[in-house]
Amino acid sequence: MRVGVVGASGYTGAELLRLLHHHPQVEVSYVTARTYAGERVSDLYPHLHIYANMCYEEFDPGRAAEAAELHFVALPHGESMRVVPELIAKGARVIDLSADYRLKDPEEYKRWYGADHTSPELLRKAVYGLPEIAGGKLEGAALVAVPGCYPTAAVLALAPLARAGIPGVESAVIDAKSGVSGAGRSLSLAAHFAQAEGSVKPYGVGSHRHTPEMEQAIGGLAEKACRLVFTPHLVPMSRGILATCYVRTGSALKPEEVDRLYQGYYAHCPFVVCLGRGRFPETKAVCGSNYCHLGWHLDLERGMLTVAAAIDNLVKGASGQAVQCMNAACGWDEKTGLEALGVFP
Amino acid sequence: MRVGVVGASGYTGAELLRLLHHHPQVEVSYVTARTYAGERVSDLYPHLHIYANMCYEEFDPGRAAEAAELHFVALPHGESMRVVPELIAKGARVIDLSADYRLKDPEEYKRWYGADHTSPELLRKAVYGLPEIAGGKLEGAALVAVPGCYPTAAVLALAPLARAGIPGVESAVIDAKSGVSGAGRSLSLAAHFAQAEGSVKPYGVGSHRHTPEMEQAIGGLAEKACRLVFTPHLVPMSRGILATCYVRTGSALKPEEVDRLYQGYYAHCPFVVCLGRGRFPETKAVCGSNYCHLGWHLDLERGMLTVAAAIDNLVKGASGQAVQCMNAACGWDEKTGLEALGVFP
Amino acid sequence: MRVGVVGASGYTGAELLRLLHHHPQVEVSYVTARTYAGERVSDLYPHLHIYANMCYEEFDPGRAAEAAELHFVALPHGESMRVVPELIAKGARVIDLSADYRLKDPEEYKRWYGADHTSPELLRKAVYGLPEIAGGKLEGAALVAVPGCYPTAAVLALAPLARAGIPGVESAVIDAKSGVSGAGRSLSLAAHFAQAEGSVKPYGVGSHRHTPEMEQAIGGLAEKACRLVFTPHLVPMSRGILATCYVRTGSALKPEEVDRLYQGYYAHCPFVVCLGRGRFPETKAVCGSNYCHLGWHLDLERGMLTVAAAIDNLVKGASGQAVQCMNAACGWDEKTGLEALGVFP
Amino acid sequence: MRVGVVGASGYTGAELLRLLHHHPQVEVSYVTARTYAGERVSDLYPHLHIYANMCYEEFDPGRAAEAAELHFVALPHGESMRVVPELIAKGARVIDLSADYRLKDPEEYKRWYGADHTSPELLRKAVYGLPEIAGGKLEGAALVAVPGCYPTAAVLALAPLARAGIPGVESAVIDAKSGVSGAGRSLSLAAHFAQAEGSVKPYGVGSHRHTPEMEQAIGGLAEKACRLVFTPHLVPMSRGILATCYVRTGSALKPEEVDRLYQGYYAHCPFVVCLGRGRFPETKAVCGSNYCHLGWHLDLERGMLTVAAAIDNLVKGASGQAVQCMNAACGWDEKTGLEALGVFP
Repeated sequence: MRVGVVGASGYTGAELLRLLHHHPQVEVSYVTARTYAGERVSDLYPHLHIYANMCYEEFDPGRAAEAAELHFVALPHGESMRVVPELIAKGARVIDLSADYRLKDPEEYKRWYGADHTSPELLRKAVYGLPEIAGGKLEGAALVAVPGCYPTAAVLALAPLARAGIPGVESAVIDAKSGVSGAGRSLSLAAHFAQAEGSVKPYGVGSHRHTPEMEQAIGGLAEKACRLVFTPHLVPMSRGILATCYVRTGSALKPEEVDRLYQGYYAHCPFVVCLGRGRFPETKAVCGSNYCHLGWHLDLERGMLTVAAAIDNLVKGASGQAVQCMNAACGWDEKTGLEALGVFP
Repeated sequence: MRVGVVGASGYTGAELLRLLHHHPQVEVSYVTARTYAGERVSDLYPHLHIYANMCYEEFDPGRAAEAAELHFVALPHGESMRVVPELIAKGARVIDLSADYRLKDPEEYKRWYGADHTSPELLRKAVYGLPEIAGGKLEGAALVAVPGCYPTAAVLALAPLARAGIPGVESAVIDAKSGVSGAGRSLSLAAHFAQAEGSVKPYGVGSHRHTPEMEQAIGGLAEKACRLVFTPHLVPMSRGILATCYVRTGSALKPEEVDRLYQGYYAHCPFVVCLGRGRFPETKAVCGSNYCHLGWHLDLERGMLTVAAAIDNLVKGASGQAVQCMNAACGWDEKTGLEALGVFP
Repeated sequence: MRVGVVGASGYTGAELLRLLHHHPQVEVSYVTARTYAGERVSDLYPHLHIYANMCYEEFDPGRAAEAAELHFVALPHGESMRVVPELIAKGARVIDLSADYRLKDPEEYKRWYGADHTSPELLRKAVYGLPEIAGGKLEGAALVAVPGCYPTAAVLALAPLARAGIPGVESAVIDAKSGVSGAGRSLSLAAHFAQAEGSVKPYGVGSHRHTPEMEQAIGGLAEKACRLVFTPHLVPMSRGILATCYVRTGSALKPEEVDRLYQGYYAHCPFVVCLGRGRFPETKAVCGSNYCHLGWHLDLERGMLTVAAAIDNLVKGASGQAVQCMNAACGWDEKTGLEALGVFP
Repeated sequence: MRVGVVGASGYTGAELLRLLHHHPQVEVSYVTARTYAGERVSDLYPHLHIYANMCYEEFDPGRAAEAAELHFVALPHGESMRVVPELIAKGARVIDLSADYRLKDPEEYKRWYGADHTSPELLRKAVYGLPEIAGGKLEGAALVAVPGCYPTAAVLALAPLARAGIPGVESAVIDAKSGVSGAGRSLSLAAHFAQAEGSVKPYGVGSHRHTPEMEQAIGGLAEKACRLVFTPHLVPMSRGILATCYVRTGSALKPEEVDRLYQGYYAHCPFVVCLGRGRFPETKAVCGSNYCHLGWHLDLERGMLTVAAAIDNLVKGASGQAVQCMNAACGWDEKTGLEALGVFP
């Protein structure tokens, strides 16, 4: 199958090209980038030297539809919802990595992204692409909205509790730590090496756009409204997210029950590895891979369950998950092209 | 005044030597280290080249008392309470950086450190050396117990709330991120560069020994029992602690009130810088300095107050605070020798 | 084919397990480690969770020969030459990653490694496993000596010049910069995060054991004795080696000639990517991959050719190269199992 | 004395403010920045919180001359030579950190910086501010040109050899490794954390503007023309330069002679620490300090002397050196305000 990557000059675009190179069912036949149109992929990204003969093009819907049957769209939010309808109209499948098709309520989109949603009818059809909670909805999907990096980590940490109706999950505290690649390839003082190195800092406290997305997903699983407290932090590493989640479960829950909940929920999820009780994940163990590692601890005295999830923000938090969604949508084995282990140390 | 550093081969010992070099009132006249006895300070630590003519000695109480009037003790817990009584008996003042004199209840010490406390009478006399909450007790103190690095950050973040009786502080969640120097100079896989670089991970979840120390300090200020949830994380940087604290304050508190509480409480504390509402600290801004930076955000919708404190774990979290305690104990200006700003970037 | 990894608890051993998992022709059936015998691979290395059911064994030659037809030996030098003869005697093929079979002259071995070589007859038979210069000798080899990490980078940078008899190569200066994983998983102050982070330093100046190995390889290609100047440096990153090589070529050489030499020499080497004149490599672009990136600049005014090579020390500099050697020895496509691109950023 | 910092929003400007805060003889009374005019210093740089009441101004020569008697100019090259003549004309002393007054030959300036030099008469009067080689010329100087960061490290490494006429120094190879702050605060892909972290790469090979500056300084000391080979590398740390210098001295030199040369040359230089033969420097030991650490090794077999120098590029390589120059120019003790030791680890 021929696939395209629309917006292939950013980090998630480059990561798609890296991963798709290893995918036996597809061939990348179309890559676009506005600023870099005409330049070779390998000039921007020397690690993609096998794409030495491929140049970025300006996006064109007609050319896109001819060139590929399925497109990954790795554009900024706002731009994506201008391009996706054109691709869908031409009959292409779309795996969208932007935020444009994640929030089901256009009002919520407007509130958090500051603009009217311009394709609400596609929004209704889009499937939220977290395969571990999608329950079969991804098969045959024409439009998939790949979750944000933070929501992926947080929802995987909390899904078994939410589905089981464990109290406290609706007001969980999510303290997340992200590598700097999460901010993308665009230049900013926060991403300047000399500023970020040797430093940890919170940002977007009380206002990060991934909050409503988490609340929607956890709320959907728990079947009740959620008011999560989410604080992202920038830490001095390139890749990786660790989400430490605090759930005030009260005194009724037992440690064995927690183990059962997690192991049961993820029994058939090849990319979620339950390290188990008292063993906590580290981001480096999943670096470059599509795996999510989970660990937990129940403090009976304080009635507090602490769950930590580690992912690679560019793989399971973005491009790897997008490929996993494509696999599901196309009826292929979920793991196709994604079995690379973490690069450690 | 001649001062000694007992246990000067570790990172807090070396940091004391660095800071004391800049202190106009003291002269370092005695340094000890068991493993490195006979070696030059500057051979272990090239940055301390001005100590090129000073060698580590084996500790000897008689020699110590002759050599200096005040001693900083930077030994591991357990070892400190063997040495401190000898120094006190000889009439020396002691600023102890170990955990041995922090917990006021010997039973609590035994529970967390797994050994009987062997100098309970000195434990009663020791002053907990967090100057910002000590309220004059440090003046003339013969024995000061310098707080742990995590408790310093967490208590500075929460003290104004605790003192004001704000509800929720007694069950606060403290998610702390520390640089690797916090683990000391001794070798371990966790501190191996290739393991720690590019990785974030929680450790000691539900069992870290700084938990009871925080509960004692916050509980003392709030005048009620506390059950804090504390999760430390290792992040890939050498220095710095960021403590992000979550206090479920409910709906009564107003943002202006929070501002007033913090600015009032720290009005006369030269080392605490209130960045204010919505401005969050970064560890790098305090690197190498004795300052603590604070920022906060009140989420009215969720009834959640998030407060973050940044310190350098080796300065305000250990050796700088020890010097600050000496200044207070000796009746000198609190800031003497400690005015260096953070080394940024 | 069933393969074993003898000494699988170190970083090169773990990296072999990671790479072999992706290799379609082999199955890992035997892993040994003395200290960790009886422990699960995934307990030491969470990123190798797919080896959760495999435990380290104590090495036993009989069991080894039964369990696998080919063994990778990733033991320290000195230990390897005790184990390799036993494996060879049982009819197994061996890819040795230690230094024991690299230097062809047992006297040279003794001089640099401080011990008599105990299997000089195998030393004669061992093939030096740098496929790009091996010229067919690897096919069918029973014992392969995988080059050191620094020699791999330096020899790939200089081989085209040496083979072409360019003057100056015999006295080249090689200034190499390595990530900390090159020091292995064993604990040392130099590998302590707080010591290595934020620092660059030379080590082993004038005495590094990779010097004679480089001189042997370059000298072999140039067909004359070489006296190279080699200075390794530790830089604060986990993986990667950059070797910057200075060759005083004099005034006769032309830039186009340099281009031709390199492009010609590496025309059929799938893992060497010539970035070309004036484009210099960065280690991150090859992180986790078996590729070597090369760039060069000829300063006509100074008669100086500067060539830089970047590799991942654990892949092309060790375990990936070992797999490449196995492929060659077994008559498989050189690239089998090694096509993963660098993980960037 | 009241001093100004013209161009105080970049890293060298901020570092001047940090260092001048500790200087007992001066008070910062004027700070300028074009882009940030009207903003508080502490809003850009939280570590400079003690400058909370000071705002950046637009540069104005009249206001500058009123506000301060001496100005540090930390503007980009090209901008500096427009401002400096105005300040000098008003009677102010100037310590210029740009490249504009370093190269004595205006033709050389034009060749390397691509523009005519607009104040050649001041160029003649400017003193090159490397105090260790200035030989008294700095005293009373009205205009000082502070050396570049790389030349500082390279010249300190080679000066004793050059002055002594050791052969080989005129064609030395200088392989330098710099932290990312050397690129300044302005945004670039090379300084993006995700690009720079985990990577080493050469840049500006054969074309870096610090080459002629080194050749001028070393050539001046050696009293002959020099053709140095200089290759800078970016390494993943914020601060620090390590310059590894290779001098083909031939067979006549003896190790003891090298020791004598260095120790003699630097006997009265308080900021140069000779670690001695076989002990090599690391950048972290000088982090945040004005010290330069030197180590060397003479390979008799190869006739090669390797000398390494470590400095903090923002202190001894820029702002600290500027303060040292001010001290010399004003007749104060060279060490005033600069005695802080390296912040390690």
